[in-house]
Amino acid sequence: MKTLKLGLLGFGNAGRAFAKILEDKKQEIMDSFGYNIIVTGITTGSRGNLYNADGIDLKKAWCELEGQGHFNKAGSDYSQMTSMELVENGEYDVIVEMTPLDIFTGQPATDHLRKAMGRGKHAVTANKGPIAWYYNDLKKLADKMDVQFYYETTVMDGTPIFNLKDETLKFCKVTEINGILNTTTNYVLEELAKGKAYDAVIAEGKKIGFVEADPSMDIEGWDAAAKVTALLNVLMEAGITPRDVDRTGIENITIEDIEKANEQGKIIKLLCKGTLENGQVVASVKPTLVEQGSLMSVIDGTSSVVQITTDLMGKLTIIEHDPELVQTGYGIFSDVLRIVRNLV
Amino acid sequence: MKTLKLGLLGFGNAGRAFAKILEDKKQEIMDSFGYNIIVTGITTGSRGNLYNADGIDLKKAWCELEGQGHFNKAGSDYSQMTSMELVENGEYDVIVEMTPLDIFTGQPATDHLRKAMGRGKHAVTANKGPIAWYYNDLKKLADKMDVQFYYETTVMDGTPIFNLKDETLKFCKVTEINGILNTTTNYVLEELAKGKAYDAVIAEGKKIGFVEADPSMDIEGWDAAAKVTALLNVLMEAGITPRDVDRTGIENITIEDIEKANEQGKIIKLLCKGTLENGQVVASVKPTLVEQGSLMSVIDGTSSVVQITTDLMGKLTIIEHDPELVQTGYGIFSDVLRIVRNLV
Repeated sequence: MKTLKLGLLGFGNAGRAFAKILEDKKQEIMDSFGYNIIVTGITTGSRGNLYNADGIDLKKAWCELEGQGHFNKAGSDYSQMTSMELVENGEYDVIVEMTPLDIFTGQPATDHLRKAMGRGKHAVTANKGPIAWYYNDLKKLADKMDVQFYYETTVMDGTPIFNLKDETLKFCKVTEINGILNTTTNYVLEELAKGKAYDAVIAEGKKIGFVEADPSMDIEGWDAAAKVTALLNVLMEAGITPRDVDRTGIENITIEDIEKANEQGKIIKLLCKGTLENGQVVASVKPTLVEQGSLMSVIDGTSSVVQITTDLMGKLTIIEHDPELVQTGYGIFSDVLRIVRNLV
Repeated sequence: MKTLKLGLLGFGNAGRAFAKILEDKKQEIMDSFGYNIIVTGITTGSRGNLYNADGIDLKKAWCELEGQGHFNKAGSDYSQMTSMELVENGEYDVIVEMTPLDIFTGQPATDHLRKAMGRGKHAVTANKGPIAWYYNDLKKLADKMDVQFYYETTVMDGTPIFNLKDETLKFCKVTEINGILNTTTNYVLEELAKGKAYDAVIAEGKKIGFVEADPSMDIEGWDAAAKVTALLNVLMEAGITPRDVDRTGIENITIEDIEKANEQGKIIKLLCKGTLENGQVVASVKPTLVEQGSLMSVIDGTSSVVQITTDLMGKLTIIEHDPELVQTGYGIFSDVLRIVRNLV
């Protein structure tokens, strides 16, 4: 039995969902691949850190966080190690980057990944920032260091988009990508269409968790821009950043716009798009009229959709329906599993 | 450079589409994987057979068939070898089974696969018969002989359904499958809804190639039953045959039924379904009322859809839009490529 050691940067909802799946599937992974996966380090922003080169008790870790809001300072694995200290000096084979996103810089996530891969460690990130801002650099570093680097969760949680391209659409050339990638705006547009006032929709959305405390990154289209950039960088080798996306948010959409669209048998969706123009990838995020009864019009609630057009496989559509936290956890898990499968 | 030898059983539209992709990507595969893929045998029902252990000129082969309707009898590779003789005595590493489907027996495709894998050869089938009728037996044989066995094309052409489960939804338990899997019935129901007479729709469909010469296998739901059986056998280990599917075709759907549905804001689709009941997989194919504006209602023309519900990844939907022959060819190609990747 071999051992694979993970270092976890961040232990929020997604991180804990991942830890629970990992714990649940531990025996199955040992039986299937002969690898015992252990976690040697967990760092958080303000809830303390854990480190034990022989393996942390994961169940105890998530129980402490969920029970008392922070790791137990008197615990034997409690550590002063910061995220970057873990990355630079910790003992691990795979770094799992799940720190909070800074959508305009991709930091500190990108530096964590650089340092870890620079040390010859495999890397998984659930953070879209590094893929939107620095994908080419990170991919080159992974190739140079001969380490594995996966990021499935960055777009549509565990829905296999990047994996699909690597595993089954290899040798196809992607010529166009379309999608609805931001669920907050999808939800807000739907609620506005019911005749509700903008402020009321935002307030209600915050209450049920569909809208963030600061909704501007979603409403202004930055989140969608980062996601479509990540898709285009990986699937179409675009080499762009979110600033290159022709971006319009939904902040200026009025109930009158929605009613006018409705009169024409249409509805407004925040569509993401990437196409090839003269050999260059051109990307946009903008409110777009779509026919009622068309495929894009039926993507509702917190569901997302990606359409991938390729030379050999035509157009494929993949829809994720109303994901929950477990899906994000599964996405990270599936990336770790890819690493294990490739090591066997 | 290593060589991988293929034996092709059948060389119809899908077979030739596959051969063209293979020829086109030959160099890229050599560069990526260090394998030179050659075809040593091609058998057809009535268009002659080719055999050359050093490799057939593929381009010449498809040009002969497309130009004169059969292989050139005076050609140096022309052979009297039948499909079963190629399977039993030919020199090849991978058998690619593309003979015409017998939907009630899965033969002779199943015997071809059994004999080939019994000889320790890898196998790819584009024929849904073997997967619908004998999946468990064939899978066991593949495991016993330690050979690779793939069948992506049997449902939704090259759309990665089976691969998705193997590669990215591994460790998820599939709890339900829904889909629209037969495009002929989807087309016929749509045309009937326009007020056209049944016979006129069938005649027109035959003319444009959407309806087979004998449409009964489609209309009576047998094709859909075979496909959902294949999905359920592989993804839910159902161990059933098409005869176990609670099957109703669209032969008794009248324009009155369609109009009545329309008055209720609904349309009729031939839905395929597999669920777990008391630990058993229960399968059905039947005309079903779906809400206008729902996802299933917007799957039109020759598009297909599969929805997979799992414990850890919730519900995923995959849509193939108006496939052409190249998609079927790509499905076979992607299966051959999986074999190569696993050999490297």
